[in-house]
Amino acid sequence: MDIGKALVVGTGLIGTSVALALRERGVAVYLADVDAHAVRVAGELGAGLRWSGQGVDLAVIAVPPHAVAARLAELQRRGAARAYTDVASVKAGPVADARRLGCDLVSYVPGHPLAGREVSGPAAGRADLFAGRPWALCPGPEAGADALDLARELVSLCGAEAVTVDAGAHDSAVALVSHAPHVVASAVAASLAGGDDTALGLAGQGLRDVTRIAAGDPVLWRSILAGNTLPVAGVLERVAADLTAAAAALRSGDLDTVADLLGRGVRGHGRIPGARGRVLSG
Amino acid sequence: MDIGKALVVGTGLIGTSVALALRERGVAVYLADVDAHAVRVAGELGAGLRWSGQGVDLAVIAVPPHAVAARLAELQRRGAARAYTDVASVKAGPVADARRLGCDLVSYVPGHPLAGREVSGPAAGRADLFAGRPWALCPGPEAGADALDLARELVSLCGAEAVTVDAGAHDSAVALVSHAPHVVASAVAASLAGGDDTALGLAGQGLRDVTRIAAGDPVLWRSILAGNTLPVAGVLERVAADLTAAAAALRSGDLDTVADLLGRGVRGHGRIPGARGRVLSG
Repeated sequence: MDIGKALVVGTGLIGTSVALALRERGVAVYLADVDAHAVRVAGELGAGLRWSGQGVDLAVIAVPPHAVAARLAELQRRGAARAYTDVASVKAGPVADARRLGCDLVSYVPGHPLAGREVSGPAAGRADLFAGRPWALCPGPEAGADALDLARELVSLCGAEAVTVDAGAHDSAVALVSHAPHVVASAVAASLAGGDDTALGLAGQGLRDVTRIAAGDPVLWRSILAGNTLPVAGVLERVAADLTAAAAALRSGDLDTVADLLGRGVRGHGRIPGARGRVLSG
Repeated sequence: MDIGKALVVGTGLIGTSVALALRERGVAVYLADVDAHAVRVAGELGAGLRWSGQGVDLAVIAVPPHAVAARLAELQRRGAARAYTDVASVKAGPVADARRLGCDLVSYVPGHPLAGREVSGPAAGRADLFAGRPWALCPGPEAGADALDLARELVSLCGAEAVTVDAGAHDSAVALVSHAPHVVASAVAASLAGGDDTALGLAGQGLRDVTRIAAGDPVLWRSILAGNTLPVAGVLERVAADLTAAAAALRSGDLDTVADLLGRGVRGHGRIPGARGRVLSG
């Protein structure tokens, strides 16, 4: 095992979950956060010990996207770790920031575990949060073999599946499969504000599933979307165009156009790996 | 128990599930369907015996919305039951059709169980499909006490919760909480057609949940939407307007507008009874 000691910077939901997963696999974990209370909570959960400058093999930067590069630069100045990764939901922005700040890109492998919960904070952390999930790794052309090995070992220790992908392609991909769907779920949930209690009382599992992610932390999601504006806008425009056309078709009684959208939806749904039938509301 | 014998007309998913639930509660159930194979499959699952004209207490018409009134008229001509109900996802259209066809509205209580699966056919039927679910009953002004009692007993025997609501209010409600969300889920799923395999490989539970209902039978959903065009169009227009505005805001870097939508989504989500935090994809 190459990761004997790890540092987790940012003990929110994701950072604490990474720390808990590493602890379960016997890694010595140190914790840091600008919020001393968050570190204390994570420590009480068994996620590790408060960091006081110890050198580690891998530092995992688990802070919001816009803050990743500054934290990376600071840790690299201190020589805190052999290698560095992060877990931010967007990758091109933090990589560009890191380049601009003069970070060492040999020891940095940007990452993004595709897992989360709609609750936040260290107390929501779970060692099995990443089990079986994809975890994107976006090494730049400069990335060294040692850093890449350590990042891959992190993914493996967390029980996730590494997917290597270019940072730009990653951001387009998550716009399609995560960020735009989140905004769409928010729009459906927002439409419920106008419904009366009887209407809401008829809600079934289908509505709960469509809107579940809309309960996510708006501050975090604002930050995620701010780092991926154009790819998300492109997907939202296509979805909005389909919905506008469907509404016009319904008003004019053109059910063929609506049926075409339903058919494309079935085919698109079939492209999701592991999508299977479960119980839903009618 | 007032329902000693029941007739289920239409042995698809919903009809077969009703029949299985009634069988579990000791009701004698007869089955009819234009598709003899569907009746045979439902019968082999223990849902009941093939109907050959026996008189029953309650007939449950489980056919697509556009076919409900004609089937009701035919059954009433035969005097098949003391009372009649249906399970179609829209109510104003079938009720208007029934009135136009001269059906007896004293013995008819329109109904709609808010449950289903994205798989169809009798083999997908489950006795517990309605357990704990809302089941709308939309009795007209003419509806008699005996018919209403029998419809309520059906709901109770299926383990569901009766919600009495006007047919027009029902259709607006399900447009908001079921039909429009289905079309939106289809549009998100349709957007995936343009994604490459790497992008789809990053899909998490969030996308699976948002798009799950998009796997539903397009033929059935075309029929449902055809019966509820204007209320669904109204909701879709509001959702599309929010998404168009969000896309424009993302392109111009106006994150406040996006954050406002996210916040409205959190509040709207909180209005869904029983919506709770669960694991989601980031």
